[in-house]
Amino acid sequence: MASTFGRLFRIATWGESHGAGVGVVIDGCPPRLPIRRDEIQAELERRRPGQSKITSRRDEADQVEILSGVEDGLTLGTPIALLVRNADARPGDYEEMKTKFRPSHADFTYQAKYGIRAVAGGGRASARETIGRVAAGAIARTLLTHAAGIEIVAYVKQVCDISAEVDPSAVSRAMVEANIVRCPDAKAASAMIEFIDAIRKAGDSVGGVVEAVARKVPAGLGEPVFDRLEADLGKALLSLPACNGFEVGSGFGGTRLRGSQHNDAFYSDGERVRTRSNRSGGIQGGISNGEDIVVRAAFKPTATVLVPQETVDVDGKPTTLQARGRHDPCVLPRAVPIVEAMLALVLADHWLRQRALVGGTA
Amino acid sequence: MASTFGRLFRIATWGESHGAGVGVVIDGCPPRLPIRRDEIQAELERRRPGQSKITSRRDEADQVEILSGVEDGLTLGTPIALLVRNADARPGDYEEMKTKFRPSHADFTYQAKYGIRAVAGGGRASARETIGRVAAGAIARTLLTHAAGIEIVAYVKQVCDISAEVDPSAVSRAMVEANIVRCPDAKAASAMIEFIDAIRKAGDSVGGVVEAVARKVPAGLGEPVFDRLEADLGKALLSLPACNGFEVGSGFGGTRLRGSQHNDAFYSDGERVRTRSNRSGGIQGGISNGEDIVVRAAFKPTATVLVPQETVDVDGKPTTLQARGRHDPCVLPRAVPIVEAMLALVLADHWLRQRALVGGTA
Amino acid sequence: MASTFGRLFRIATWGESHGAGVGVVIDGCPPRLPIRRDEIQAELERRRPGQSKITSRRDEADQVEILSGVEDGLTLGTPIALLVRNADARPGDYEEMKTKFRPSHADFTYQAKYGIRAVAGGGRASARETIGRVAAGAIARTLLTHAAGIEIVAYVKQVCDISAEVDPSAVSRAMVEANIVRCPDAKAASAMIEFIDAIRKAGDSVGGVVEAVARKVPAGLGEPVFDRLEADLGKALLSLPACNGFEVGSGFGGTRLRGSQHNDAFYSDGERVRTRSNRSGGIQGGISNGEDIVVRAAFKPTATVLVPQETVDVDGKPTTLQARGRHDPCVLPRAVPIVEAMLALVLADHWLRQRALVGGTA
Amino acid sequence: MASTFGRLFRIATWGESHGAGVGVVIDGCPPRLPIRRDEIQAELERRRPGQSKITSRRDEADQVEILSGVEDGLTLGTPIALLVRNADARPGDYEEMKTKFRPSHADFTYQAKYGIRAVAGGGRASARETIGRVAAGAIARTLLTHAAGIEIVAYVKQVCDISAEVDPSAVSRAMVEANIVRCPDAKAASAMIEFIDAIRKAGDSVGGVVEAVARKVPAGLGEPVFDRLEADLGKALLSLPACNGFEVGSGFGGTRLRGSQHNDAFYSDGERVRTRSNRSGGIQGGISNGEDIVVRAAFKPTATVLVPQETVDVDGKPTTLQARGRHDPCVLPRAVPIVEAMLALVLADHWLRQRALVGGTA
Repeated sequence: MASTFGRLFRIATWGESHGAGVGVVIDGCPPRLPIRRDEIQAELERRRPGQSKITSRRDEADQVEILSGVEDGLTLGTPIALLVRNADARPGDYEEMKTKFRPSHADFTYQAKYGIRAVAGGGRASARETIGRVAAGAIARTLLTHAAGIEIVAYVKQVCDISAEVDPSAVSRAMVEANIVRCPDAKAASAMIEFIDAIRKAGDSVGGVVEAVARKVPAGLGEPVFDRLEADLGKALLSLPACNGFEVGSGFGGTRLRGSQHNDAFYSDGERVRTRSNRSGGIQGGISNGEDIVVRAAFKPTATVLVPQETVDVDGKPTTLQARGRHDPCVLPRAVPIVEAMLALVLADHWLRQRALVGGTA
Repeated sequence: MASTFGRLFRIATWGESHGAGVGVVIDGCPPRLPIRRDEIQAELERRRPGQSKITSRRDEADQVEILSGVEDGLTLGTPIALLVRNADARPGDYEEMKTKFRPSHADFTYQAKYGIRAVAGGGRASARETIGRVAAGAIARTLLTHAAGIEIVAYVKQVCDISAEVDPSAVSRAMVEANIVRCPDAKAASAMIEFIDAIRKAGDSVGGVVEAVARKVPAGLGEPVFDRLEADLGKALLSLPACNGFEVGSGFGGTRLRGSQHNDAFYSDGERVRTRSNRSGGIQGGISNGEDIVVRAAFKPTATVLVPQETVDVDGKPTTLQARGRHDPCVLPRAVPIVEAMLALVLADHWLRQRALVGGTA
Repeated sequence: MASTFGRLFRIATWGESHGAGVGVVIDGCPPRLPIRRDEIQAELERRRPGQSKITSRRDEADQVEILSGVEDGLTLGTPIALLVRNADARPGDYEEMKTKFRPSHADFTYQAKYGIRAVAGGGRASARETIGRVAAGAIARTLLTHAAGIEIVAYVKQVCDISAEVDPSAVSRAMVEANIVRCPDAKAASAMIEFIDAIRKAGDSVGGVVEAVARKVPAGLGEPVFDRLEADLGKALLSLPACNGFEVGSGFGGTRLRGSQHNDAFYSDGERVRTRSNRSGGIQGGISNGEDIVVRAAFKPTATVLVPQETVDVDGKPTTLQARGRHDPCVLPRAVPIVEAMLALVLADHWLRQRALVGGTA
Repeated sequence: MASTFGRLFRIATWGESHGAGVGVVIDGCPPRLPIRRDEIQAELERRRPGQSKITSRRDEADQVEILSGVEDGLTLGTPIALLVRNADARPGDYEEMKTKFRPSHADFTYQAKYGIRAVAGGGRASARETIGRVAAGAIARTLLTHAAGIEIVAYVKQVCDISAEVDPSAVSRAMVEANIVRCPDAKAASAMIEFIDAIRKAGDSVGGVVEAVARKVPAGLGEPVFDRLEADLGKALLSLPACNGFEVGSGFGGTRLRGSQHNDAFYSDGERVRTRSNRSGGIQGGISNGEDIVVRAAFKPTATVLVPQETVDVDGKPTTLQARGRHDPCVLPRAVPIVEAMLALVLADHWLRQRALVGGTA
């Protein structure tokens, strides 16, 4: 049951990195929504490895097939099953990992939990699992666009010590896609690319921060007390591989302000009640207030590095591991579409929940 | 359905701040667990306002009654209902708030979502809702203690710019309870108390960070891919009032390290596989690895401040609000038992889930 | 988690028969719905023992208190907690049952499952648990009335070998409440009452069938494939104490017809598509078709009888049990409001689910 | 969310009859369970049309592919995805149904609910959906066999007016598979086969009753109050196409007995507490008592008959429909493996739930 997410717009992902394929079943998508395979495929292209010199060199074609739930380009209201076949398996790359636990990877914990694990490619712990999320997210986004005109944009905000200046209220996908690191601040982007490339050559890895904004979200989404919008967004992003931090609005930085500095003053803008600042990140009391929703996710450095590391083997004996394979020196650029997908999934779910509760949103 | 939390150790909280009471129903607690009312009450004492000069002056007695699920001091395996009657209501304090939205509070968003709201005391958005969480958390903790000897300790790590030095592997509840701010670093604690008291006198508020550790957690808890342990912990803490940030292990700070610096090397310690460092915060691949679980939650400054603020009234007209009432200048000290409760609830849930999956934990 | 029911209109009941009380928390009820305590109380009066000579002589006042979720007579959209205190406990009546398992009762299975049980009054297995269902059902019914004008009427259709003739499309609550057995066929009702009274005097018990109709249900409720409307209705009724059979429409009798005889021909009635017959019981393909929903629930004879029975004690030794206490000779009359409540809960849930899916019902 | 079933052993089915395929994802299956593709395939063979002269003549090969969750013949503890490609589509058969609603079929209600429907083959309402259930059920059965030695056997108990005599405690799969109608009473089976064949030639259809037994189920499965074992079994079977009635133990017939006749006396059989009779059908108070679990499901006559029927078209105009296609005159023989699968799914789920609650079953 741990591979399902969402209450009303609900997805179930499945698949190991080196099994027959990966996929997702979406249950709860409203009927009569226009769905195009090429729109889903386009999101997968943004996620796949091999797209640039700063991502993994693995070449995964990742062609998506719509197996059910859509007829003549329209959703039927029934479960939508999407399948992506695996390919390009090089099991030889993983021979050493059969017997040695990679530090800070999921090898040891999967073994401890299940008493068994799919060694090749990390199995279920592989980032290939996110293919199902991205594919489902593309459909969630279509729902949000049609239903409420909601826009979602994510981008790389920070790589190691290099930070970007980005205006969440104005950033566009075109600005994000303008460079291979997906950072809309051109100057920072250049520095990031150069840095990641150097790290790659050194066989090392780096982490960073993805920021995301959802605009035109109507006030009223989010369900106190446990399903506060920030709680569900936080869970969504923290469920991504390598994500170990989450913030909404002012986040950790906001803890250094006083209430009188931090509060967002209300004012009237025609019919709408708006706020002069947005330290709340568009969410107050767990419910969207109509301002831009702004969140950030921290991603640790990729665990698989090509330098020798101390570890133990499956029998507990000390050993050294020098990983091989074609891993990402920095997951951030490929995390951008995944973060967008998770935002879309959470918002689609809450949009439907609000429609159930009061019949719709303003 | 938004007031339920957990899958197997499941709680449902209810109650508005100025209704008849607040409470919780726990469904899924195993049978034959020893439960004492006074142990639950003791946790509520740590949470309640009026306990010191740096918390709200409201005096809420908060006596808990066990209504069901326990007989002769043992759980029956049936739902455990706990009730705390409300008292000390001063509706007059909230007269102005009927018509004016408090900035950065839940007034506006509740109105936008539901088209109605309980004005007095914030209604459902009041921190009184956490009484149910703390009471249920006390029972979850009993389960964890009996089942696995798990220890949970939370403490104030930072207030505004004042940070504490604390060793998560050694901190004890006695050290936390040694001062009214619940910070086990005595020097930082003094500074925090002085600072909060000054802020209180100024009618302002401050935020900060609570850190928490869970020790002796067996390896294997957490269920990829969506119910990763850090995802469920993140959701748990981000569902708390005023929490807008979450980290596990190295968190945002870890994004500034390289993989070769960040990875936790494995070594053998007798029968156990352990790690030399703990930047993973005890969780790898979404599953506990047997090391200390270390998380942090950011709490923004309390929204209710006693200085005049720009806002609008329910008709959208500009106005000024100067809050009255007996609010906390800093929620951190009272957040400590609440954070502990949320950790206990998540771990109890996952402990049962692991028992369902493989019959138990090592 | 086993004491929760429903997905969007979700209830959690709690309470043992001889603990402090019983109750329910309703999570997911839409806001701004008018709720009156006396309307809930009226349903509880129909359920309570002591209401006539053919029900248990126990006198349980069962006064309901609304603890949360309602202010000034309107729902807030937050959880609604309802509490009924227990009273009239006569633990002495249950002394013998501490050590002897009552045949066909839940004593043995609770002990086998939990390793512990609340002996007095059957504990959680007591029919007092249904108080929470009836109270929640009253609120569900209010939602259905306001939202869609749906009418629900249940009645005793059969007691042992005595069957009633009732027209589901015309039966009213007044007709049902016209006699103490709640059978709208006056002639059958007289026979039933006489028979039950004789059974009571003999210290024995009888079972029977409750039939229920829901009228003016819009077409479109029910969610294939697993949450077909008849599947959720079936689960709802089969979850009642003593219920061991369920039918919709023609049910078991329909298995003796041929398809050409059984099918319900469609015709047009103005704007509506209707059926000439209703062997489908208002549900086709798991979805309501706009016709009357007609279901039946079988209730076995009450397990507690006052004649000596062969059984074993808690140590497995053979013994004889002669139950005492004030039990119902026939649960049917009191089951009527409970069945209505369960129908209301299922329909309210599906009404909200359909609103989430497509924005409403025709 | 309506295409998911189960809490801990959870399945999600997907697929329309004439889309790319049908399938299922199983989430929550314990790790290290031996799974063989041919065992799953064998169950699908029992379900598929074209297997005998009394089933539909459609020839559906229904080859299952294991896409994930299994490696080297052992489950990994991760989601198991199973895929069966569709084939043999003859869309021409359904041309007339595009515009005309088949009486007592799901055409009208799907259109009313979703505003759209997959016409060919009934789309999601097709019995092809049960392929996913049967495949998942085969895995659930493997779990039950390994974990507890539980045996499940279903069989045709009644076809129209022809009833069989079967001893649930002794019936074996071999006896069931001995004839094409899957009725272990040879004499009744012959009569049923002859009758169904005549009905088929007449272009008509018949219904009947499937009975099923689960043996060696440990005492303690089932979770009061809403997830009583009979409630979950009832929901499971009532969620099957054409099922409109459910009974456990004495069922509707038991309503004609008195309590003193109906109760199952307890006695000691060595270490076990057993009952002399089994009118409870192995379930008391919603929990298994260790006796054979015996349930029955009523299936109405197949809606699609080849005789002319009154109906309306999609514009509400009166018309006549004479169905074509290769439909089953009687679904009972093919329902047998489906009923077994549903029992296995419910019992596997509750077996895991009991393990979570108390660490295992006796």
